[in-house]
Amino acid sequence: MTAPLHEARPSGSGRALPDTQQGMRRRNLARVMHAVSAEGSLSRAAVASRIGLTRAAVSTLVDELIRWGLLEELGPERPGRVGRPGSALAVSGRGPAGIGAEIGVDHLAVCAVDLRGTVRARAVRRGGNRDRAPEAVAAELGQLARRVVAEAQREELWPAGLAVAVPGLVARDGRTVVRAPNLDWHDTDIGALLPGEWPLTVDNEANYGALAELWLGEDTPHDFLHVSAEIGIGAAVVVDGGLLRGTRGFAGELGHIPVRPDGPPCPCGGRGCLEQYAGEEAVLRAAGLEPREDRVGLLAGRAEDGDERVRAALRDAGAALGIALTGAVNLLDPETVVLGGALASLSPWLLPSLEAELTGRTAGPACPVAVSRLGPEGPLLGAAHSVVRSVLDDPAVVTERS
Amino acid sequence: MTAPLHEARPSGSGRALPDTQQGMRRRNLARVMHAVSAEGSLSRAAVASRIGLTRAAVSTLVDELIRWGLLEELGPERPGRVGRPGSALAVSGRGPAGIGAEIGVDHLAVCAVDLRGTVRARAVRRGGNRDRAPEAVAAELGQLARRVVAEAQREELWPAGLAVAVPGLVARDGRTVVRAPNLDWHDTDIGALLPGEWPLTVDNEANYGALAELWLGEDTPHDFLHVSAEIGIGAAVVVDGGLLRGTRGFAGELGHIPVRPDGPPCPCGGRGCLEQYAGEEAVLRAAGLEPREDRVGLLAGRAEDGDERVRAALRDAGAALGIALTGAVNLLDPETVVLGGALASLSPWLLPSLEAELTGRTAGPACPVAVSRLGPEGPLLGAAHSVVRSVLDDPAVVTERS
Repeated sequence: MTAPLHEARPSGSGRALPDTQQGMRRRNLARVMHAVSAEGSLSRAAVASRIGLTRAAVSTLVDELIRWGLLEELGPERPGRVGRPGSALAVSGRGPAGIGAEIGVDHLAVCAVDLRGTVRARAVRRGGNRDRAPEAVAAELGQLARRVVAEAQREELWPAGLAVAVPGLVARDGRTVVRAPNLDWHDTDIGALLPGEWPLTVDNEANYGALAELWLGEDTPHDFLHVSAEIGIGAAVVVDGGLLRGTRGFAGELGHIPVRPDGPPCPCGGRGCLEQYAGEEAVLRAAGLEPREDRVGLLAGRAEDGDERVRAALRDAGAALGIALTGAVNLLDPETVVLGGALASLSPWLLPSLEAELTGRTAGPACPVAVSRLGPEGPLLGAAHSVVRSVLDDPAVVTERS
Repeated sequence: MTAPLHEARPSGSGRALPDTQQGMRRRNLARVMHAVSAEGSLSRAAVASRIGLTRAAVSTLVDELIRWGLLEELGPERPGRVGRPGSALAVSGRGPAGIGAEIGVDHLAVCAVDLRGTVRARAVRRGGNRDRAPEAVAAELGQLARRVVAEAQREELWPAGLAVAVPGLVARDGRTVVRAPNLDWHDTDIGALLPGEWPLTVDNEANYGALAELWLGEDTPHDFLHVSAEIGIGAAVVVDGGLLRGTRGFAGELGHIPVRPDGPPCPCGGRGCLEQYAGEEAVLRAAGLEPREDRVGLLAGRAEDGDERVRAALRDAGAALGIALTGAVNLLDPETVVLGGALASLSPWLLPSLEAELTGRTAGPACPVAVSRLGPEGPLLGAAHSVVRSVLDDPAVVTERS
């Protein structure tokens, strides 16, 4: 996978395949896969009516997809329906799997997701990665990935690709971490250090978190701003069902929007950036707490217990988020803002002041703010599903890979 | 033209035509038009090699386009070239024309642009439209448009559509002005008041200004943020050669990004919005000048003459722009920022402080800022060219319209 396949186009419309007979056939294979995948199971006739092709054309495509092991027949549909009973089709639970991985500041994780979207294997290692050499982190992640792949292979799955979420800015080459301040990585070609046996993509964790929300969230619209936090504050902009990446791949740096232009200096070179008010370390400092491993749990616990200083710190963080989001909403006009990651767990104390700023500063109805149900799992799931989607979006790739 | 055809896809790749033989043919017709249009004149063989189709296939498409009056043959190419002399093709200077119109706060304008991109007729009426009834403004614009169309018809052109730029937020229906504070229009269905004899699209002036920059600017990249000002401050976001419109069509409201969250109240409901520091009226106030008709000319003239109070006011406006743009650049990661409209004329006094903020607040190299050469003509030209583009993007529409 040399380029992400989910970029700036609605999922299901297929990647930019050439406008030839061959390209048309590949796009139609994708339409069949997406139609079956969306419904769980579907007859050939139902696929045909859904994608607007003849039943004969669909049968040819389906036979190919069955031969490749991407679809399977569930046997004849139950009687009682009108017409000749058709055999129901389902996406295969064997064959290609997406391997997702996450390099967190305090953990590593890997999982395998089959074409049906089910997590079939996973492994996690807790422990800080701050200031560790990229070589050591990549080697350990490689071991975890091989363990997960071996487990998946025992269930007749094979890795269609490895997608790795990192807490930093990733270049458009999909492998170089340009800047990950909380790991102290700079211009690190992590792609060269990770296992080379599978197609590899590296991307920012906020991007994968947003894609997870898009694909797995309930009623998530196709235009939204996804805001998450680990140590820093990250965001991802989804437009028309695709990520807005920016020229260098750096779009979504909400954490460095100036909230108070004369505020405290920020390591980015600016002053009064959002991260200086709503980043985890700023909030801990304002709350008078020492940083420790489970920072979010600490803040949530204290706020739950009614600690007024912690609540005030979260209230101020919410207000700063609201000011920065007012700017972002004015610029992007998203359908909704989704709070994910650590912000989801802290939302009860952040939301009131956040929404007060957003509403008070907006002409007309303010942009609604939703809280993600995926929480900290988002980036890992988004990474694995991005590989699964790349297979659904162009099923013919399996003939080149398996 | 029921939907803008230039949206969120690189120009020349064709609109979202159905993935059928018929759709493929229409896309290939578009490829031929764009290839010839880009070069001025081109032989059939050169078109074929450029778009990757056989010469026979291209000849069939070209014959069709000649029959429709969209291409014309210039006669045999000059001898001395290798091979059989081919007849050079050019885009026709007759046939469909794009009619662009602009409703400004202080003027109305209409122009006709042929498929070659040449302005063939135009009309302007100076005089304020503030607080005038939309009916009166639309009637007067209709008269101007009919005059321009009559002039174009005398040169064998016919209107392929009318595109109208307005200084306000336009709903995604492409006809309703939701909010134009400087005209005091609210939820105005201007589409119902304008001439109905041609396909009609209404859009925000900043959007058309950005498209003009994209299509007519020199070396304009495909990802940029276009900032302009008339009374308010508007912006448009171009991603991958298409406009980012937002859910409701309101994206690009840079003027209401909070620059100083506790600053002066803004009619939008917020406080300390960019417009309170860098809008024309705010700058005039800071400079101690009375508003009059040619506000930008007044400011530029005084600054040119060395008026220190005016220069300080522009310096402060530039700094506020720099703070707001820092946020926008962090969020969007554009390749460049382009200052257009009134900001272009004032750029000598705005740029130093603007760039100082942008550079000082950015980790790594700051986003470059360019000044538009189209100036206040941008929106009108962008509107007319959007109609021309709609014909190049799907030439077969002329068979439905002419």
